[in-house]
Amino acid sequence: MGIITGSGRPTLPPEETLDPPDWAELRRLGHVMVDDVLSYLETVRERPVWQPMPEEAKRRLRAPAPRAPEGATKAYQDFREAVLPYPTGNIHPRFWGWAMGTGTPFAALAEMLAAAMNPDVGDFDDAPRRVEAQVLAWCKEVMGFAPEASGLLVSGGSMANFVGLAVARNARAGFDVRQRGLAGGRHPLALYASREVHSSVKKAVEVLGLGREALRLVPVNPRYEMNVRVLEETIAEDRARGCRPFCIVASAGTVNTGATDDLEAVAALARREGLWLHVDGAFGAWAAISPALRGQVRGIEKADSLAFDLHKWGYLPIEAGCVLVRSQEEHRKAFSLTADYLAPGEGGISAVPDPQSGYGLQLSRGFRALKAWLSFKEHGFDRLSRLVEQNVAQARYLAERVREAKDLELLAPVPLNVVCFRYAPASLGERERNERNRRLLRRLQEGGLVLPSPTILEGRYGIRVAITNHRSRREDFDLLVSEALRLGREGA
Amino acid sequence: MGIITGSGRPTLPPEETLDPPDWAELRRLGHVMVDDVLSYLETVRERPVWQPMPEEAKRRLRAPAPRAPEGATKAYQDFREAVLPYPTGNIHPRFWGWAMGTGTPFAALAEMLAAAMNPDVGDFDDAPRRVEAQVLAWCKEVMGFAPEASGLLVSGGSMANFVGLAVARNARAGFDVRQRGLAGGRHPLALYASREVHSSVKKAVEVLGLGREALRLVPVNPRYEMNVRVLEETIAEDRARGCRPFCIVASAGTVNTGATDDLEAVAALARREGLWLHVDGAFGAWAAISPALRGQVRGIEKADSLAFDLHKWGYLPIEAGCVLVRSQEEHRKAFSLTADYLAPGEGGISAVPDPQSGYGLQLSRGFRALKAWLSFKEHGFDRLSRLVEQNVAQARYLAERVREAKDLELLAPVPLNVVCFRYAPASLGERERNERNRRLLRRLQEGGLVLPSPTILEGRYGIRVAITNHRSRREDFDLLVSEALRLGREGA
Repeated sequence: MGIITGSGRPTLPPEETLDPPDWAELRRLGHVMVDDVLSYLETVRERPVWQPMPEEAKRRLRAPAPRAPEGATKAYQDFREAVLPYPTGNIHPRFWGWAMGTGTPFAALAEMLAAAMNPDVGDFDDAPRRVEAQVLAWCKEVMGFAPEASGLLVSGGSMANFVGLAVARNARAGFDVRQRGLAGGRHPLALYASREVHSSVKKAVEVLGLGREALRLVPVNPRYEMNVRVLEETIAEDRARGCRPFCIVASAGTVNTGATDDLEAVAALARREGLWLHVDGAFGAWAAISPALRGQVRGIEKADSLAFDLHKWGYLPIEAGCVLVRSQEEHRKAFSLTADYLAPGEGGISAVPDPQSGYGLQLSRGFRALKAWLSFKEHGFDRLSRLVEQNVAQARYLAERVREAKDLELLAPVPLNVVCFRYAPASLGERERNERNRRLLRRLQEGGLVLPSPTILEGRYGIRVAITNHRSRREDFDLLVSEALRLGREGA
Repeated sequence: MGIITGSGRPTLPPEETLDPPDWAELRRLGHVMVDDVLSYLETVRERPVWQPMPEEAKRRLRAPAPRAPEGATKAYQDFREAVLPYPTGNIHPRFWGWAMGTGTPFAALAEMLAAAMNPDVGDFDDAPRRVEAQVLAWCKEVMGFAPEASGLLVSGGSMANFVGLAVARNARAGFDVRQRGLAGGRHPLALYASREVHSSVKKAVEVLGLGREALRLVPVNPRYEMNVRVLEETIAEDRARGCRPFCIVASAGTVNTGATDDLEAVAALARREGLWLHVDGAFGAWAAISPALRGQVRGIEKADSLAFDLHKWGYLPIEAGCVLVRSQEEHRKAFSLTADYLAPGEGGISAVPDPQSGYGLQLSRGFRALKAWLSFKEHGFDRLSRLVEQNVAQARYLAERVREAKDLELLAPVPLNVVCFRYAPASLGERERNERNRRLLRRLQEGGLVLPSPTILEGRYGIRVAITNHRSRREDFDLLVSEALRLGREGA
């Protein structure tokens, strides 16, 4: 009987959409938003790095779920008043806490483009999949990985480490972990990292079901690099006890001090022992893009898997991490799983030989590749390389200023872009020093002029400065030193 | 000796930044970008839903890593030519493949705001953390969870399921999984889901180290809902064999047909058996926001953990998923891990009682909450509820058109927003029907007019339409039916 097209049907309610009732009005609002956020970034240096929120702004963020529409203009106004003035602060030239990217104005605009196209990236025959593939190809190229290696853009370093360790687990456990689970093994598994390894590796080990017990934390030398001799002995002891060593996690740029394990030595050991080598290069891997700094991370290209962030030293906005895996086959075998409704088509939109969802946990995947693609094209890797070198030069500059200042003490070597120091006049004992520096850090943060983060090295509380900031200038570090001295002397 | 401020130092190289050399020029480009993407979305109905890429565009996406800077304008031009014309297509009114959100224009602009502020969300005393907390509070409210439940915004449904199952595993395994790993248990663990469960649950089970063997796939009734009687028997058999059941995964809106398991019955069983109840409500959970549809997912609020997407039926751009966990304590115990350099401060920027990184895998976390916050305020939940109802009405409308068409056959009940049908004239045998519909789907996709996805139900290849699209109109489904009939009769 074919289809009937409406006549004789009961009247149906009119349909609505979430598109704007007036596109011209949204265009005008969009222009205002662009002007606002670019001015916001242009003038960021004039504002405090960070400031606590006033009660009134907090109160506005406690209202119940909105039932009635507010409209775009009013919602944006709320954002301008209650949200925009109170960022984390990592966009500011004097934010050096933890290891956060600064982001760039053009990359922020790129996120709008990505969300407007709104693709589901990696499983369909479209441009976004190819953009991600190209960004991954560039990452392999600059990190010294072969073109046939595989890779995935993920939320950040934590997920990149997680993916790398999941592949390592399944590839080297010695039995079918996907089928039988970790309870199906005959020997306790063991993996190795230095005491300075990032917390995300510990979390990955636990979440992957390996258990904290499986992770051996190897001591470090005075440069905070893994002691490879002890590593080798520990592996031998484990084998003697009936454990099955399967993976070494090396760090390229530890979060505490920027130290890099001896990757050449660790890679040679891993090869001799038949172990997977995973390298956590969250920010440190970026040293590889600079001819002047590449020596710092020599051997990084020998990793079986490498994790790093594009949103730290790649200067992109959060979230953008990357994992590279030497063996595409092992990578796929750890994650690929095809359901009926996901079966690749022979033609049409699903004619994709190798969907990216088969390489990680996500099925729907956003277009984070676009900000990387646009940003890398905007600047080119030569400039990015100079910026990375500039941050390292700034770290050395700061270390020099700290060494020159009578009452400041450098707490660790400065091989890369991290400087740890403290206020330590001779008049104060160790315990007083820790107390004083704890207060000092808090006052530095609350003063709004500079924002370092804390660390504890050998029991010594320290002020930690991690420079992955393209807006910082040498004078900013002069200010940090003078503020640290001023507040330290005031008793912080 | 204090600090020296420059004099007497060797000349240092000038510092550069990744900020634009000319802010006014970037402002102008930003306006062009806003105009372009809003026009792109305004006119999306006039373009093909999907089209393959020409060789020339593909070629441009194979260039090696750029060394020299191209500048923002040129990079954007490349994007306009080689990327923008070739999206996945889910922004189009006639895209109903898989289960993808459409996104909205204002939410795309919101992503620019989020990336400009570029916060690291959840661990710092700033507005973005409170925006996420508010969005989570709204989600709890509309899903019927208590305010003291915990939650996390994640990349999507896969990660939301993963987090829920990780918590379930650690909370109910009966031993310290974080410390000892899954090899440390005495009894094989078992969990349960229907045969129709989403592939991401299977992947989570494998990645969590539980092993595919641990997951029992329970048969479904003719409505594709889990057979609760068989579920109960399977649990009893497992106990008798010395296994330790720990979790039931129920579906609210299966991906294949939109079926929802009997959540009340499953919740009662889980309580009796002392099992964790995780509900995968990727899109189906959104039925809960509508008074008219809430009955479809009755009992969803009894879940111990609930996973759903904001980027599917919440109409937001990818990526935005959410997991709610009834017990904040269990949620935290599965993921929280504090390193020295992450120790919460007593004051300053880290004075946050309960950092969000302690509730999932990510440490750096982007501001995906902002697009949700702005969008929910823009539209209000009453309108979102009407849109969800509209999609369900459209699914029923389409099912009616299919029933009326002599050569089309409905393959499954239509309880929600998913319609599975096929071209099945009496003249064709079963095997020919599968072949014909496979070709038909491909031709539908390649024709660019409509974009459904495939499924296989009881061995029957079907055309699957999942409606989470705020741009669709009834007439679009008329076109789908007439195209399916036309191409089917042509032999597809």
